[in-house]
Amino acid sequence: MHIETEATQQLHRAATDARVAARALARSSEATRNAALTNMATALRDHQPDILAANEIDVGNYNGTNAFRDRLTLNPTRVEAMAIGLQEVAALPDPLARTLADWTRPNGLRIRRVASPIGVIGMIYESRPNVGADASGLCLKSGNAVILRGGSDSTNSAKAINTALQEGLAASGLPAACIQNAPTSDRAFVGAMLAGAGLIDLIIPRGGKSLVERVQRDARVPVLAHAEGLCHTYVHEAADPAMARRIVANAKMRRTGICGATETLLIDRSIAAAQLPAIVADLRALGCDFRADAQARMVVPDLKAATDTDFDTEWLDAILSIAVVDGVDEAMAHIAKHGSEHTDAIVTEDAAIADRFLRGTDGAVALWNASTQFCDGGEFGFGAEIGIATGRLHARGPVGLEQLTTYRYVITGTGQVRP
Amino acid sequence: MHIETEATQQLHRAATDARVAARALARSSEATRNAALTNMATALRDHQPDILAANEIDVGNYNGTNAFRDRLTLNPTRVEAMAIGLQEVAALPDPLARTLADWTRPNGLRIRRVASPIGVIGMIYESRPNVGADASGLCLKSGNAVILRGGSDSTNSAKAINTALQEGLAASGLPAACIQNAPTSDRAFVGAMLAGAGLIDLIIPRGGKSLVERVQRDARVPVLAHAEGLCHTYVHEAADPAMARRIVANAKMRRTGICGATETLLIDRSIAAAQLPAIVADLRALGCDFRADAQARMVVPDLKAATDTDFDTEWLDAILSIAVVDGVDEAMAHIAKHGSEHTDAIVTEDAAIADRFLRGTDGAVALWNASTQFCDGGEFGFGAEIGIATGRLHARGPVGLEQLTTYRYVITGTGQVRP
Repeated sequence: MHIETEATQQLHRAATDARVAARALARSSEATRNAALTNMATALRDHQPDILAANEIDVGNYNGTNAFRDRLTLNPTRVEAMAIGLQEVAALPDPLARTLADWTRPNGLRIRRVASPIGVIGMIYESRPNVGADASGLCLKSGNAVILRGGSDSTNSAKAINTALQEGLAASGLPAACIQNAPTSDRAFVGAMLAGAGLIDLIIPRGGKSLVERVQRDARVPVLAHAEGLCHTYVHEAADPAMARRIVANAKMRRTGICGATETLLIDRSIAAAQLPAIVADLRALGCDFRADAQARMVVPDLKAATDTDFDTEWLDAILSIAVVDGVDEAMAHIAKHGSEHTDAIVTEDAAIADRFLRGTDGAVALWNASTQFCDGGEFGFGAEIGIATGRLHARGPVGLEQLTTYRYVITGTGQVRP
Repeated sequence: MHIETEATQQLHRAATDARVAARALARSSEATRNAALTNMATALRDHQPDILAANEIDVGNYNGTNAFRDRLTLNPTRVEAMAIGLQEVAALPDPLARTLADWTRPNGLRIRRVASPIGVIGMIYESRPNVGADASGLCLKSGNAVILRGGSDSTNSAKAINTALQEGLAASGLPAACIQNAPTSDRAFVGAMLAGAGLIDLIIPRGGKSLVERVQRDARVPVLAHAEGLCHTYVHEAADPAMARRIVANAKMRRTGICGATETLLIDRSIAAAQLPAIVADLRALGCDFRADAQARMVVPDLKAATDTDFDTEWLDAILSIAVVDGVDEAMAHIAKHGSEHTDAIVTEDAAIADRFLRGTDGAVALWNASTQFCDGGEFGFGAEIGIATGRLHARGPVGLEQLTTYRYVITGTGQVRP
């Protein structure tokens, strides 16, 4: 209780500083923000020895899995990659220089809807220390102050990176409080952030499922999060068979651990016998395992039988669920029942069927004749992304600079009063 | 506990039906949705006797204030106004027929960001039964299913209106579950709605401050709400004196109870002696009272002294707080400290100062030489609005049909796979 109170006070101070910094940032010119990003990149390079030394302490203290240790570990290449990332963000178009709508009313009032920063963003992330630098760059470019709360395993690394970034900020005349590290590694600070209505405008969690679920459950502040990517590829009877093989193999196996990886293949009954064996053979050659419904196993008998929950499972692994369907409506019904409204693709040469699928599914991304693995900010041309959002409000799909802004109205008159 | 469980089950059933209906609605044509709105208007007229009879029961049971009873009471004119409202919404442009962005990547993928319905909206409102009909029309037009939970005082009226609206839906072939009334007037149902993550996509509360605060505090679902409208009008030293008088009088006194009404006048020190007396005299003639800082009282001594909290008070009444400031930066600092990021106006003939103010304030709406009372969906040309949002995400300011939509990506390829 006492700790919670202390964390709340610490958050209040940090968020109050962040609010003041956010106002300065909102008024800053694009040139100032870009100069800051360049200076931040330079400072990261200058501070490389301190950052690596701090990281060495974190890695030394860590006693968990090797995979996690690898993500935690920094080296000169990784520090340089952070610096390059900041320079790349500096080179992207200013997301605040956008007029989203502009109209004049009969009474002469001119109304403009313009992009504006969200305000103060709380970033809660795990493991990779570079997430802090990347998020700092994206938030700064989009005019938002950020409070970063990294994993407790990377406290020293996060602090060293933050010191460098704030030095870069100072060199461009922006307040250090634009980019703040959590002042404590106390877990209660996370609770204070989640409860920070009015102090923090948006929480972005980046990490494992349990972190995201905790944030979504406890936050009293809007959250932009990635929950689940149960993506489907539907091979329609009018699919080009070679294209279907190529797309399914890529959608499943290019990388199995990303959210846009296909987890379930839906294939039309009328072509299953002709095409499923080749699709399965391609995937098997790539090391894929299967969970198939009874009809698919009629065609390829040695497929493992799917259980009731398999079609609701995000494998994130070299496993593919397979169900046979009777046409596009049944495919869409399967997706509506089992999907996570993330990314779904149809393979077909029939434009009318494709249109029905593109309109009739309800995920953040619907693709026609392309791999679900294209659900990615880089592939969208966003230049950089802070993550992928699975909620339905504010932003869906890849979250780039534009999605880190909101809007406001600027109205110019000549003395109008309301009748 | 048992009641909560029952309410949760009721919500689950209603929301599941709503989800199915929302999918049908999302695929429906504009013509179908407009026909439904027209049929709903006709059904309201046909059902006028039932609606008035049901309303008579509600009014008879009610034993509170006269003001509330008046808002609760329906008559033929008010029922006709609901029907006309639905027809007007039918005539508005389709908010779903919007492509928000459209680009082609070097690999040939064409990416379109298109407007799409939010899904299932939970509407929690008090007193006026017409809010249910208005919200139903806006949700239907924007492709969203809605679950309505009106005040317990208007249960019979809400049920009769809903019966009519569902009849109109049926006549156009859309599922009745597009527009559902809460199946119970049990208060636990509100709790179930607020806890309905995954079942309800957005909660919109319409009512008094305590309702909105409860929703914002308890909701596990995104909320689009109006919290507070502490609006400012700043009269800069380069203001046209006659225009300043006209705008301040209108911004404060046209209607004092709306959220866009000005609550605080800021006036530059250099012109206070010359202009404040006339501004005060105009307002006094309209019945306004004042809470003024010491400097303002130097100029107009009989103004009542402001207390510490007056500048943080949303009067919603014929009372104006007055503070003297030293230029635009001090005005913006006052607004940042005391305002609610709603609507703020500057009166000046100096374009550079106006620009500084328009960029430097951070409310949903910033006006130059116009009355703050223009913060209204009708005045923006939205045709109809469901309310005004004071949050920073998804929608700010008036919430019309466009703000009741979200977006998704539709990507068309020719067999692209991700390298």
